[in-house]
Amino acid sequence: MDSKYLVSLLKQVKNGQIEPDEAMHELRHLPFEDLGYARIDTHRCARTGVPEVIYCEGKSIPQIQGIINRMSEHHSNILATRATWEVFEAIEKIGLECQYHEQARIMVANPRPVEQVGNIAVVSAGTSDIPVAEEAAVTAETLGNHVNRIYDVGVAGIHRLLNVCDDLFEANVSVVVAGMEGALASVVGGLVSCPVIGVPTSVGYGASFGGVAALLSMLNSCASGVSVVNIDNGFGAGYQASLINKIAVNKAPPE
Amino acid sequence: MDSKYLVSLLKQVKNGQIEPDEAMHELRHLPFEDLGYARIDTHRCARTGVPEVIYCEGKSIPQIQGIINRMSEHHSNILATRATWEVFEAIEKIGLECQYHEQARIMVANPRPVEQVGNIAVVSAGTSDIPVAEEAAVTAETLGNHVNRIYDVGVAGIHRLLNVCDDLFEANVSVVVAGMEGALASVVGGLVSCPVIGVPTSVGYGASFGGVAALLSMLNSCASGVSVVNIDNGFGAGYQASLINKIAVNKAPPE
Amino acid sequence: MDSKYLVSLLKQVKNGQIEPDEAMHELRHLPFEDLGYARIDTHRCARTGVPEVIYCEGKSIPQIQGIINRMSEHHSNILATRATWEVFEAIEKIGLECQYHEQARIMVANPRPVEQVGNIAVVSAGTSDIPVAEEAAVTAETLGNHVNRIYDVGVAGIHRLLNVCDDLFEANVSVVVAGMEGALASVVGGLVSCPVIGVPTSVGYGASFGGVAALLSMLNSCASGVSVVNIDNGFGAGYQASLINKIAVNKAPPE
Amino acid sequence: MDSKYLVSLLKQVKNGQIEPDEAMHELRHLPFEDLGYARIDTHRCARTGVPEVIYCEGKSIPQIQGIINRMSEHHSNILATRATWEVFEAIEKIGLECQYHEQARIMVANPRPVEQVGNIAVVSAGTSDIPVAEEAAVTAETLGNHVNRIYDVGVAGIHRLLNVCDDLFEANVSVVVAGMEGALASVVGGLVSCPVIGVPTSVGYGASFGGVAALLSMLNSCASGVSVVNIDNGFGAGYQASLINKIAVNKAPPE
Amino acid sequence: MDSKYLVSLLKQVKNGQIEPDEAMHELRHLPFEDLGYARIDTHRCARTGVPEVIYCEGKSIPQIQGIINRMSEHHSNILATRATWEVFEAIEKIGLECQYHEQARIMVANPRPVEQVGNIAVVSAGTSDIPVAEEAAVTAETLGNHVNRIYDVGVAGIHRLLNVCDDLFEANVSVVVAGMEGALASVVGGLVSCPVIGVPTSVGYGASFGGVAALLSMLNSCASGVSVVNIDNGFGAGYQASLINKIAVNKAPPE
Amino acid sequence: MDSKYLVSLLKQVKNGQIEPDEAMHELRHLPFEDLGYARIDTHRCARTGVPEVIYCEGKSIPQIQGIINRMSEHHSNILATRATWEVFEAIEKIGLECQYHEQARIMVANPRPVEQVGNIAVVSAGTSDIPVAEEAAVTAETLGNHVNRIYDVGVAGIHRLLNVCDDLFEANVSVVVAGMEGALASVVGGLVSCPVIGVPTSVGYGASFGGVAALLSMLNSCASGVSVVNIDNGFGAGYQASLINKIAVNKAPPE
Amino acid sequence: MDSKYLVSLLKQVKNGQIEPDEAMHELRHLPFEDLGYARIDTHRCARTGVPEVIYCEGKSIPQIQGIINRMSEHHSNILATRATWEVFEAIEKIGLECQYHEQARIMVANPRPVEQVGNIAVVSAGTSDIPVAEEAAVTAETLGNHVNRIYDVGVAGIHRLLNVCDDLFEANVSVVVAGMEGALASVVGGLVSCPVIGVPTSVGYGASFGGVAALLSMLNSCASGVSVVNIDNGFGAGYQASLINKIAVNKAPPE
Amino acid sequence: MDSKYLVSLLKQVKNGQIEPDEAMHELRHLPFEDLGYARIDTHRCARTGVPEVIYCEGKSIPQIQGIINRMSEHHSNILATRATWEVFEAIEKIGLECQYHEQARIMVANPRPVEQVGNIAVVSAGTSDIPVAEEAAVTAETLGNHVNRIYDVGVAGIHRLLNVCDDLFEANVSVVVAGMEGALASVVGGLVSCPVIGVPTSVGYGASFGGVAALLSMLNSCASGVSVVNIDNGFGAGYQASLINKIAVNKAPPE
Repeated sequence: MDSKYLVSLLKQVKNGQIEPDEAMHELRHLPFEDLGYARIDTHRCARTGVPEVIYCEGKSIPQIQGIINRMSEHHSNILATRATWEVFEAIEKIGLECQYHEQARIMVANPRPVEQVGNIAVVSAGTSDIPVAEEAAVTAETLGNHVNRIYDVGVAGIHRLLNVCDDLFEANVSVVVAGMEGALASVVGGLVSCPVIGVPTSVGYGASFGGVAALLSMLNSCASGVSVVNIDNGFGAGYQASLINKIAVNKAPPE
Repeated sequence: MDSKYLVSLLKQVKNGQIEPDEAMHELRHLPFEDLGYARIDTHRCARTGVPEVIYCEGKSIPQIQGIINRMSEHHSNILATRATWEVFEAIEKIGLECQYHEQARIMVANPRPVEQVGNIAVVSAGTSDIPVAEEAAVTAETLGNHVNRIYDVGVAGIHRLLNVCDDLFEANVSVVVAGMEGALASVVGGLVSCPVIGVPTSVGYGASFGGVAALLSMLNSCASGVSVVNIDNGFGAGYQASLINKIAVNKAPPE
Repeated sequence: MDSKYLVSLLKQVKNGQIEPDEAMHELRHLPFEDLGYARIDTHRCARTGVPEVIYCEGKSIPQIQGIINRMSEHHSNILATRATWEVFEAIEKIGLECQYHEQARIMVANPRPVEQVGNIAVVSAGTSDIPVAEEAAVTAETLGNHVNRIYDVGVAGIHRLLNVCDDLFEANVSVVVAGMEGALASVVGGLVSCPVIGVPTSVGYGASFGGVAALLSMLNSCASGVSVVNIDNGFGAGYQASLINKIAVNKAPPE
Repeated sequence: MDSKYLVSLLKQVKNGQIEPDEAMHELRHLPFEDLGYARIDTHRCARTGVPEVIYCEGKSIPQIQGIINRMSEHHSNILATRATWEVFEAIEKIGLECQYHEQARIMVANPRPVEQVGNIAVVSAGTSDIPVAEEAAVTAETLGNHVNRIYDVGVAGIHRLLNVCDDLFEANVSVVVAGMEGALASVVGGLVSCPVIGVPTSVGYGASFGGVAALLSMLNSCASGVSVVNIDNGFGAGYQASLINKIAVNKAPPE
Repeated sequence: MDSKYLVSLLKQVKNGQIEPDEAMHELRHLPFEDLGYARIDTHRCARTGVPEVIYCEGKSIPQIQGIINRMSEHHSNILATRATWEVFEAIEKIGLECQYHEQARIMVANPRPVEQVGNIAVVSAGTSDIPVAEEAAVTAETLGNHVNRIYDVGVAGIHRLLNVCDDLFEANVSVVVAGMEGALASVVGGLVSCPVIGVPTSVGYGASFGGVAALLSMLNSCASGVSVVNIDNGFGAGYQASLINKIAVNKAPPE
Repeated sequence: MDSKYLVSLLKQVKNGQIEPDEAMHELRHLPFEDLGYARIDTHRCARTGVPEVIYCEGKSIPQIQGIINRMSEHHSNILATRATWEVFEAIEKIGLECQYHEQARIMVANPRPVEQVGNIAVVSAGTSDIPVAEEAAVTAETLGNHVNRIYDVGVAGIHRLLNVCDDLFEANVSVVVAGMEGALASVVGGLVSCPVIGVPTSVGYGASFGGVAALLSMLNSCASGVSVVNIDNGFGAGYQASLINKIAVNKAPPE
Repeated sequence: MDSKYLVSLLKQVKNGQIEPDEAMHELRHLPFEDLGYARIDTHRCARTGVPEVIYCEGKSIPQIQGIINRMSEHHSNILATRATWEVFEAIEKIGLECQYHEQARIMVANPRPVEQVGNIAVVSAGTSDIPVAEEAAVTAETLGNHVNRIYDVGVAGIHRLLNVCDDLFEANVSVVVAGMEGALASVVGGLVSCPVIGVPTSVGYGASFGGVAALLSMLNSCASGVSVVNIDNGFGAGYQASLINKIAVNKAPPE
Repeated sequence: MDSKYLVSLLKQVKNGQIEPDEAMHELRHLPFEDLGYARIDTHRCARTGVPEVIYCEGKSIPQIQGIINRMSEHHSNILATRATWEVFEAIEKIGLECQYHEQARIMVANPRPVEQVGNIAVVSAGTSDIPVAEEAAVTAETLGNHVNRIYDVGVAGIHRLLNVCDDLFEANVSVVVAGMEGALASVVGGLVSCPVIGVPTSVGYGASFGGVAALLSMLNSCASGVSVVNIDNGFGAGYQASLINKIAVNKAPPE
């Protein structure tokens, strides 16, 4: 992966600048650091522009401390998702600066100001969907995007949605967060001309099956231009929206 | 069932007008006729105002012929659903008058003109949903209801739906037929003040799972006032819509 | 939505009574109020005759307080479903009058006496299904309907059901609440001539899969005239039953 | 298995009547015959009173011919289930006498008259369920049981069922065959005091999921005394009903 | 239901012994008692020989107290399943005698000695399945059956099962309780000639899906003579086993 | 939808240029044409830049002919997906020019040359996935995008994928098409820094459940930046990829 | 992958034996050949000892011809699974020698005699499972393993299995093929001390759900030492059994 | 089972060394001990080389104490899986020596040093998968295998995996533990030539459905040579890996 690096390495070997074994060693050992319980992909930032993101569920506090501690030597604005207050306090305890976004359950370690560019609309169907929407919004903001939050515009009162059409038309990409029947993704997808990323949520009960109803609804959207991420995966939607929004921003001519 | 009949029977027994054993006999043998392979519920018409409806799938041609032949002695406008051309021809062959609604796969035996009253809106999301919508519409019409067909107004172009709002507002009850993500039921449910009966269809592919996506979507509708019938069950929706529409018509004062 | 309003607005514009921009502004801003975390559909009451209903699960106490507080400025008998004691106390705390129906988990804010008209039968299969049945019954009563509760008449002792046939025959619409195998909806559907709304409940264990068995059973009812709402959705059934019962009442000639 | 045989064998060995190796050989080779593609459990008849039953699906015609040919050397009334006309003709072709029950898809090879004792009720909800009901009935009759067929008594017209209560009360065991919502098993289970074996059928469409709705319905029956076999498994129900009915007959004193 | 009673009632009416309205009244009001939240099927004992069984889950303590209190006026050995210690103590508190079987989670109110006849084998695959097996065993014993408990004979060490073959051969009916892959039901079904009732349990993890793996396994048993009840439904299996065992006992000639 | 149009219309009304009723009429009738069985969203092209796309499954030949015939009056490069040879021939028959892409099952009516800009990588895991990949590729090409096809680079021989890294790095967006376990989406997602759209296919058997395994795999991708469309929905992926690629192209400065 | 090759390449570069770009070229282009629709992993044979296996489903005849034709230049005993007669004839047509195993649906192109070593037991529960068992057996034999076929030893007559214990004890690895409830895998797993690979088959009906019942049964096996492959994946089981058997053979000392 | 034992027993009987009844007695009572709630398969160690393993979930503390106490009379290194701290303390309390592996949730009673031979690679995709990986590793080590732990090498950064290729190439068998999409099993399966045992874990959320996504992914692996155990079943994978690794070790010539 990263073929330029490989060619350059091969050239150095040819020129005798480094030994083959050394090259092999470097090839294998540079891109990550092994903590025993985790191999931090330190190469990812160079590869994708974003340092590794820590998914906190299922990791012990000492493991999270260890990973973030090591990462903070090289990176700022380190995202930790599904982070509890306990995680936040544990990171503060080891002397690292960090911010906690409670609704979004996101912690940002080593936070630094970042310019927020472009325009991502994060739309939620109901009030109960806001935590997932916030996960998307905070992710996108931390990655340097401008986010426009448009909450509680579900299809049961469709005039609320029509009211915000102008906001939707201005976005480079829309993230639509909805539980229950998830119909909002299709309706937004039919209105706008930008890509729509649907995030089904587990809001609902009975035959919502923890978000499956909304997931299937979005996967079967009759509107073109809608793709979907996992149930409650606000982070994933915010991340992909950032990739798309950055294309728009980066390709735009300097003003 | 039918307690008045039971009380009347008991009174006749008391007055010596009929013998107990005879009463028992009548009680047990009047309400249906046993053809061996079928027990025709001839009492249903008195009980519910509608003769028994024949579901053709899984029945042999001779069985269907036998059932309809016997029913036609007492009833007109006998509905046979999921009827193929073969069924239609088999009924014609035994000399019974009948009409075949091909898209709806409904055959009406012993057809008689019936006044069509009230107002039922049958709404379909797409062109591919029309066969199921027609099953609902023809059922309702045969049962004596006026039906307003509003087809291909899915949410991918929501202005098509807004355009027909007036039609929706005039209906006593709406049947909403939709496959894929089935979002139309929620959107209509949010617009109108009459009861909405959702009919998920098996239109779609992949993760539509033969209509499950639309079914779950409708069951989890964020709009109040939406109930649901089985996938592709246009008949059931048309039947219940008829019950509701007739309430409106029957309770209305004579003009 | 609401085409008469739109035409009237257009006429005012034509007559110079209001400016286009003003019309546009009104069109967009009248029908709801934006609290940031919620957009209250204040237009719904005019549209459907019922103010917005608050689904409490997934909303924070301050959010519920904010929404009900604002709504109570214009509305009475505000329904809040899936409300805990904690919610009830929080509303009392901000000085609003309210009633709490514990079994039904429904809170009614700003309660006012309302005439209860017509006749809705709410039928439960077992004692364990009563909380869901109560959600349906209290919803319907709050919306101004007369409710006849018929509880614990499941099919394991069918004479209990036959015993209450007369009550069933008198209803304009029946709500049938059943868990486990949910057979009661089909049996009632075969007996009565009014619409039946089935409510599967999560009562049961093992292969009831949290109400799925009852849900599928009701969706596949061999009786015509049965439609279904989500598992444990007593509110939805009570709401739709109210719509149907009101048709009967409103269309009836004045006595 | 069959410990008496094992003890007897051990005794013969001890008495020197047979050699250990020979005993071992017999132990291993007596109870079945190996045709390469099938090991016929010829010991089953002694063990359970019924020769092995051939499930035809997935077996080639030559395999079925080979198995039945070998079995017919020792047994009569050999049951072959899920047998097509093609299977029937193939068996006739090799000169074996056999009967074909078309609706039941059962072939009986080497048929011999057998006394039909006791009383098994086989009840079907609808006409479309009759093929599965016949599989149960023919199985039970071939195994020597008296069968009372009670067809098309589904719960949509419950008086049809009440009408046949006396027949149900006289059975030692009832087999209830129903598709769609399968409610009949619960209703019969609530009426009778004999064991009820439910057979869900794949009759239905949409959310019946090929019989799953009826299966779950029967598994969750609110009536006690109901057990269930696989979807469309008329054979299994007829077989177990025979075991139960035979208990009643065999334990009864000679008249 | 109970046609003899109906004929007798009709005869009394004819003879003028009772008035029709009175007959109707009796017909409708005798067989159960309405507590508001429960209709006790007091007629069940006459109909099926067993008083109604109380399923405690989802019922409040006062409801259970009320039901058992009323039933204890007429019945002894009242079974309450899924009963917690709290339920037991609540019944003791109102002065009713009762026994609590902790593993089986069964409470027997108004306990009276009952002769235990016949022979039911209750077989469990593992130690973890014992609570469900005990529910079956205690149910059957309370209903007057002799039970032979054979625990922890799962197929992972099949010699343990072969060792108890003689016990299995002596039973009139076998209840096989197994979680995980539930293979034991098939293996026992292949060994014995009596009816086998399979009880899948929720013992297991991952792809056991709370007992679904064992349920499907038992429903698809390659051995004939196996029927199945709901996951963890020890009560249902014990109840049906009792029905079958009683046939054997009751039909047997007096010794 | 399209608020500028609404404001402009209101202004014309104010200036007396058009009558309110006329405005209302135009508002409702301009954006689509009603063929009875279909309402063509002619406004979509203005709204989203792409004319309506025809999904052929479930539509009759005359319906498809009617829709395309009407659309071809205003549009070129009309996409018809899931089109059979029969559909293609039917369109040719009515005298319309069209191209048929057999593997992709796409027909393009009224085809016109279109500049193909930017860079979309369409990657397939196996040879059997090519038809779905072609649906994505042809869709994107017809919409004016340059497509780079990279086929049969599944993870079973990961060097095949590493070999094409440079191609992947050059794309603005990648569509990854994979059946069976669908692991390719995650692996590509971990390598590249552009958005990845996963398309699960129904290639596989047994526990692939018609593409469900690949769908779940992609939804749970451990790589960030992956979103997913419905099983076999090559069109949807190609469409969204086009939206994203066009952002890159349109925002880029003129060279 | 294949680090020795990489180190060697790097050394050649260092010694100036090849140019870096040339090395890069070789690295990328040696290990497979690109046919456009397929990239043949010609490196696999060196890597794993087995040439690539062609899964025929979903591939066109010309594609299969092209792939096999190219592979046959370097390899013999090329396995093509899920091959129809049509595939076989198409390969013969292009002049390649090949064998067709009809039951196993396997074609071996360029067949060469291969020594069959070690001992793999392939066990089937029923006659209907033989095609899948044959797929496993033929795969293993073609890969150079001795296979012992033990068919139709399902648990319904467990003595048939006990009879072949010695055969099972002699195998290095056992493949157990079973449909319906799949119990055989657990029973064999409890008897033997070698690894057991379970292959669930789609043999069955109703709640077997196309092999899901057997799959879940095997995944939840109470016996240790059982792992599972996909439903009907005889090839996968035969392949892994070969890997295990070869370990035994290769590590054994020369005799 | 164990035919040599059976033949030997028969020979002793023949020689008059033991009586038939005695032989029968021994045959049935030797191989296990019955504790009432458990039948300890003491014969298993002779049969499979490993004493019975105790699965603690669902067993009471006294039951576990009883089982381990009795087993420790004959065996050392007794494995108890899914053991909590409470279980560990209870075993210590009765005076037995034991070790507790907390992450693996495994307790080893009566621990004795055991030589660790061969080479098993245990690979985990993420840090959160380590507990399941440890269950596999500790199981294998306790059974006498050398284990190489390779953790956190998931496909989102594939260079981490390529880096450890040499370690993978040296293993006799690989256990691959992964949650979420479980792609790692396929990628490893494509790289190595040894058998791969996939262990899906329940790590993930939403549409991972508690490990189902990873399970399906692994079952559908496009790489040959991968078999799968139950979700989170580290023990089962470690056990089977031990069986395979031991083959390699035992068959190897003495050095």
